[in-house]
Amino acid sequence: MDDRLTALKRRLGELADLGHALALANWDQQTMMPPRGAQARSESIATLTRISHELFVGAETGRLIDGAERELRDADPDSDDSRLVQLVRRRWEKARRVPPELASDLARAASIAQEAWVGARERSDFASFAPYLETNLKLARRYVECHLGQPEFECAYDVLLDDYEPRMPTAQLARLFAQLRDQLVSMLGALPRDGAVDEWPLHARFAVEGQRRLVREVVSMMGFDDSSWRLDDTVHPFATRIGVGDVRITTRWDEDYFPMALYGAMHECGHGLYEAGLPAALARLPTGAPESLGMHESQSRLWENMVGRSRAFCEVLAPRIAALAGGRLASLDAEALYRAVNAVRPGFIRVEADEVTYGLHVILRFELEQELIEGRLTVAELPEAWNARVREYLGLEVADDADGVLQDVHWSAGLIGYFPTYALGNLIAGQLWERACDELPGLEDLIAAGDLAPLREWLRERVHRHGAKFTTGELLERELGAPIQVGPFADYLRAKLASVYGPPAGRSF
Amino acid sequence: MDDRLTALKRRLGELADLGHALALANWDQQTMMPPRGAQARSESIATLTRISHELFVGAETGRLIDGAERELRDADPDSDDSRLVQLVRRRWEKARRVPPELASDLARAASIAQEAWVGARERSDFASFAPYLETNLKLARRYVECHLGQPEFECAYDVLLDDYEPRMPTAQLARLFAQLRDQLVSMLGALPRDGAVDEWPLHARFAVEGQRRLVREVVSMMGFDDSSWRLDDTVHPFATRIGVGDVRITTRWDEDYFPMALYGAMHECGHGLYEAGLPAALARLPTGAPESLGMHESQSRLWENMVGRSRAFCEVLAPRIAALAGGRLASLDAEALYRAVNAVRPGFIRVEADEVTYGLHVILRFELEQELIEGRLTVAELPEAWNARVREYLGLEVADDADGVLQDVHWSAGLIGYFPTYALGNLIAGQLWERACDELPGLEDLIAAGDLAPLREWLRERVHRHGAKFTTGELLERELGAPIQVGPFADYLRAKLASVYGPPAGRSF
Repeated sequence: MDDRLTALKRRLGELADLGHALALANWDQQTMMPPRGAQARSESIATLTRISHELFVGAETGRLIDGAERELRDADPDSDDSRLVQLVRRRWEKARRVPPELASDLARAASIAQEAWVGARERSDFASFAPYLETNLKLARRYVECHLGQPEFECAYDVLLDDYEPRMPTAQLARLFAQLRDQLVSMLGALPRDGAVDEWPLHARFAVEGQRRLVREVVSMMGFDDSSWRLDDTVHPFATRIGVGDVRITTRWDEDYFPMALYGAMHECGHGLYEAGLPAALARLPTGAPESLGMHESQSRLWENMVGRSRAFCEVLAPRIAALAGGRLASLDAEALYRAVNAVRPGFIRVEADEVTYGLHVILRFELEQELIEGRLTVAELPEAWNARVREYLGLEVADDADGVLQDVHWSAGLIGYFPTYALGNLIAGQLWERACDELPGLEDLIAAGDLAPLREWLRERVHRHGAKFTTGELLERELGAPIQVGPFADYLRAKLASVYGPPAGRSF
Repeated sequence: MDDRLTALKRRLGELADLGHALALANWDQQTMMPPRGAQARSESIATLTRISHELFVGAETGRLIDGAERELRDADPDSDDSRLVQLVRRRWEKARRVPPELASDLARAASIAQEAWVGARERSDFASFAPYLETNLKLARRYVECHLGQPEFECAYDVLLDDYEPRMPTAQLARLFAQLRDQLVSMLGALPRDGAVDEWPLHARFAVEGQRRLVREVVSMMGFDDSSWRLDDTVHPFATRIGVGDVRITTRWDEDYFPMALYGAMHECGHGLYEAGLPAALARLPTGAPESLGMHESQSRLWENMVGRSRAFCEVLAPRIAALAGGRLASLDAEALYRAVNAVRPGFIRVEADEVTYGLHVILRFELEQELIEGRLTVAELPEAWNARVREYLGLEVADDADGVLQDVHWSAGLIGYFPTYALGNLIAGQLWERACDELPGLEDLIAAGDLAPLREWLRERVHRHGAKFTTGELLERELGAPIQVGPFADYLRAKLASVYGPPAGRSF
C-alpha cells in the first residue's frame, strides 16, 4: 500500500545524503581547506547543488508526492507521514515555480555581488556596490513574481520571508516588530548615560589557551561531547549538523575580548543542541530537520543570553575565568561579570550589539528591505535612509558606510528576508525562557551549580523533537498555547536592566 | 564541430566534482569526524557513489563518447583530447560490463567482510573470517567473468590487476616478480646475522612536539606549503588530493619510534607531490588524474627511501633530530642514523618491513591471490600456504594468523590484485632514481644541503605532468626509453647494503 511513500522517502534520503556532502564541503571550506582549494571547492558545491535541485524538482518527485498523498488519504493529517508529505508538497511546488535560468542567475549574481561587497566595504564605498545590489533586488523581484498569485502570499515580502520563516505573514511580523521597536526605544531612552556600568572585565587580557579551556568546560556543561561534536576555529562562526551524531560548532578568539569566544561558542552550541536534538527517527527526512531560522535562533540566543548572561551562570563563570585567566581577571567576581556582560551601549555594528539594541539593528534592516523590494526606496537613497534610521533608533551618527549600510553580507548574498529571523529568535527565546522558568523548579539554582541538563532536556522535549513537523507558529501554539509575542522577551529585558542599572527611579524601562 | 567532446568534458567535470565531495568525505572520516557520525557518513558516501556511477555508465555517456570519437577522427591519436576519449571509452566499457546488482553485491560484501576481519584479526581466528573471504573470492570470480572474452584480458588475474595497474599483463608482472624474488632472497641470504647494525636511534625517545617540527621542516623542503596543503593526524596514514590546490597528507606519531611519523610523512608527501604536480589544465578530467597505483607508489617510495634514507639526506636529518629530540638522540650523527634506518631485519609484518624484505611480503601475496582466484588454492589451505611461503622467503615461523594471513585489510575489502602495485612502485622508483642521478648533476650534494626542489621539478617534468595520458608502461618507454625493469632497483639496493653492511666479503648481495 505505502510503496509511493516509501519511494518518496528513499528519494528524500538521497537528498539528505547530498545535503550531508554539501554541509561538509561548507564546513571544511570555513575551517580546514587550504586557500588555494577555493576554486575547485566552488565547482564541486555548484555541481552537488545542481544535482540535488534537479533530483528534487523533477516530475518524478511530483508523481511520488501524488502517490503518497493517495496512500495517506485516510491517515491522520497530523501523523508524521502526513505532515511530511504536506511539507514536501509545499516545498516542491515553490521550487517548481522558479525557472532554472532564474535560479542560476540568482546564484551567480549573489556570488559576484559578494565579491564586490568585500571590496566596497574595505573602501567604505557604497556607490561601487550599488549596481550589484540593484541586480540582486531586480532578481529578487523576479523571484517574487514567480510566486505572487498564490493565495498564501499577500505581498512581495511574504514570498521572500517564507524561505527563512515559512508561513510567517509579513503583516504579523510587522505588528510584532512595531511593538518591539517601541519598547526597545523606550528602554534605551530610560537608561543612564555611558559609564554607569564598569566594563573592565570584558577587555582584560585572557590568553587564548585559557579561553579554550573555559569554552570547552562551558560547552561540555551544555551537552557537547567528543563522540558526536567538534569545536573548531573559524572567521565567521557558525554551527552545522553534518549528519546524525556529527554536530560541528566553531568560534574565534580575541585575547583582549574574551566574550567573543565564550558567548559565540555558547550561541553556536545552542544551535548545535537544537540540531543534535532533532528526531533521529526522521534523520534523513525534511521533517527531521529544523523548520525556521527564527526557531533556530531562539535556541542559540536562549543559551547565549538567558543562560550565559544570567546572574546564576555568572556564578559558574566568574571563578573559572579568574582561575584560568589570572592577571587582572584573578579578582573577578560574579556580580562584576554580570554587570559587564549585560551593559547596554548603542553602537554601529549589529553583531557587536547588546540585547536591547540588537533588536533595533534588525528592525531597521527589516523596514528598509521591505521598502527596497516594494520600490518605495531606491538603492541610491539607501545609505541616507539607513543613517536616518540609526539616528532615530540608536541616537548615533553614522560617519562611514562600512560601519553602516555596508556592514552585513546578507544583501550582497541575495539574502533578503533573512534579517527578521534574528529578532524573532529573541522573542521566541523570551517565551520559552519564561515557560522553562515556570516549569523547571529551581532552574536558577541548577544553572548556578552548572547543571544545564534539565533545561536542555526540556528544550528537546518542547522544541527539538518536533523537527519541522509543525511550523514555528503551530509549535508555539501546541507547546506554549500562545502565538509569537513580544511581552515575555520585553519583561525579561526590563528585569535584567533593573538588576544591572538599579530600579528605574523616575524612569521606566 | 567539437560539441560532443565539450559535452563529454562537461559530464566528466561533474564526475570530478562528485569525486571531490567523496574524497573530502573519506578524508574527513579518517581525520576529523566524531565517531558517532559514521552511519550517516556511510549513507552519504553510498549515495554519492551510486549517483556518480549512474552518471558515468549511462547510455548518454556512451553517446557522447561516440560523438567525440567522430569529432576526433582526424586528430592526432596522441593529442590530449584523443587520449582522453580513448581512456574514457575503455573505462566506460569496463564499467558497463558489470551488472549493477553485482557492483552493489561487491560493495556490500566488502563492507561486511571488513567488519568480520577486524574481529578475526583481534582474536587471531582465521576460521571465522574464512567464509567472508570465500564470498569475496566468489564475487571477484563473477566480476572476472563479466570481462573474460575481451581480447585484452588473457587470464582471470589480468582483469583484477587492471583495476589498479591498467593494461599491465599478469604474465609480465610474474616475470618481473620472479626475478625480483630471486634477487631479494639472495641479498637476504648474504647478509650477516642480527646485530650487525646498531638500531638504537630508532627507539630512543623523541617527544611528539619535536617530531612535529621535524616533519614540518622536512615536508616543507619537499614542497609542502600551507596555501595548498594540509598535514593531519590519522590512524592509517594516506594522502589525497581533494581538488586542485588542495592536497592533504596524514601521519601518526610514536614517541619511541620516530621513523613512523618521519618516513610515513615523507612517503605520503611523495604521493602528495605527484597529485600536486598533475596537469592543472586537465584538472577536472580523468587524464588529469593519476593513471596507476604502481606509478603513484613509485613517487612515495622514491621520496621515502631513495631520498629519505639516503646518506646525503641523513646529513640534513641527523643534526635536526639531535637538536629537536635531545636526550640520547642529542649525540646522533648522520652515519649512525643512516645505518639504523637502513638495517635489514626480516619480520612478519609487511608495513613494518625494510626495503629488502618488503618486496618478498608483496610477492608472496601476489602468488597466493593468483592461486586463490584460479582455484588452485582453497581458502582453508591459505594459512598453511602463507606460513610456508614466509618460511621459504623470510626464514621465519608464523606463530599467529594475526601476524600472518590476517594482517592486511585488502582481501577483506575485496581488493584482489592491489598488492603487486606496492612492489611495482619500488621497481619504477629504482628506474626513475637511476635516471635522476644521471641527469641532475650534483644531486647528492643538493640533497645533503636540503635542496630538494630540482628533484621535485625533474619528477614533475618526467612523470607528474603526464597525468593519465599514457599508461605507466608507455610513460616509462617515452621518458626513460625502457619498460619496467628489476635491474635499477636491485642495483640500488645492493649498493646500499654494501655501504651499510660493508662490501660482501665472500658473500655477494
